[in-house]
Amino acid sequence: MAKLDFWFEFASTYSYPAAMRIADLANAAGVTVRWRPFLLGAIFQAQGLTTSPFNVNPAKGRNMLRDLERQCAALGLPFRKPEPFPQASLLAARVALVGLEEGWGEDFVRAVYRAEFADCRQIGDAAVIGELVAALKQDPKVVAARAQSDAIKAKLRANTEEAQHLGVFGAPSFVTQDGELFWGNDRLEQALDWAKNAALAKAAV
Amino acid sequence: MAKLDFWFEFASTYSYPAAMRIADLANAAGVTVRWRPFLLGAIFQAQGLTTSPFNVNPAKGRNMLRDLERQCAALGLPFRKPEPFPQASLLAARVALVGLEEGWGEDFVRAVYRAEFADCRQIGDAAVIGELVAALKQDPKVVAARAQSDAIKAKLRANTEEAQHLGVFGAPSFVTQDGELFWGNDRLEQALDWAKNAALAKAAV
Repeated sequence: MAKLDFWFEFASTYSYPAAMRIADLANAAGVTVRWRPFLLGAIFQAQGLTTSPFNVNPAKGRNMLRDLERQCAALGLPFRKPEPFPQASLLAARVALVGLEEGWGEDFVRAVYRAEFADCRQIGDAAVIGELVAALKQDPKVVAARAQSDAIKAKLRANTEEAQHLGVFGAPSFVTQDGELFWGNDRLEQALDWAKNAALAKAAV
Repeated sequence: MAKLDFWFEFASTYSYPAAMRIADLANAAGVTVRWRPFLLGAIFQAQGLTTSPFNVNPAKGRNMLRDLERQCAALGLPFRKPEPFPQASLLAARVALVGLEEGWGEDFVRAVYRAEFADCRQIGDAAVIGELVAALKQDPKVVAARAQSDAIKAKLRANTEEAQHLGVFGAPSFVTQDGELFWGNDRLEQALDWAKNAALAKAAV
């Protein structure tokens, strides 16, 4: 079975269309996706950045927003710039790890991206995250406690370290089982193709 | 008639597949392309950079090279990393301006990219550029003199200033007549569509 790791960061604008698209595309391609939340902040810090590269370079930041408006319009997805940008993503990433272990994670990831980029909610706000968790029929208090457990904190740190080790420098990124790294929503289809062909080649051996 | 400005930089890796693809795609779309060489160095300097962002961020630089290998393979284009990277592009940009005024510019642009990214030539070397000019049945001495004229130097400076004014922050970039800016080889098709639709909308008024 073909597999692909989907590395995403809740503060990342281009992770939004990727997260909304990947389940259907992977299903059609026969590829199993492992959803891997991580924190870009640590990776940007290692690059000497203290905020999003889109804030460091305003011309690039303006064009990124316009590009996302165009890309999302073509996909039928609403898009609005969150304020402040980037949003605080630590809590959402921890809760996503809980959800992914418990079977409601993918729906939660999509709900967070929708809240952030369609509904202009503050995804760093525990009350907002609690609402999204409750809408998925989970108990927000139980989930919040698990999200702040040492095990989940350690898992998110380990994810981020693994991403960095794999050469991930931005989000979204896609990594195949044979170690091929694809960066950006634009490369999702190519990454799925690669994962599929790598699995076929392995099966043929 | 639909028009599109194609902003390219000879040192830019992703400008290479864009330059090799744009003529056929624009022809099929009924869009007239204005080829606009400019220098990214001045724009990067204004961003506080002293070299390519791909050198500043090695993980990103490694993935860019791998991505270009994959993209170029899919397009049937050879690709090798030039050494040193980035190549000195000032002379080629000036000669391109001469050629674009005299009708052999597009062929020259493609020849430079081929020399740089397929044949590992030094495009900052006047002898290499002279060879490419001669292969297009032009007199290298006459062209070299024109390329170093005040008029051509001023034109390249003006191009770069115009690019910066338009919000260009990287290459390749595509700008439609109604001011829509698209960045990257990945956006070439979308930019051509936009240019075509803008011209149709204008004609319908």
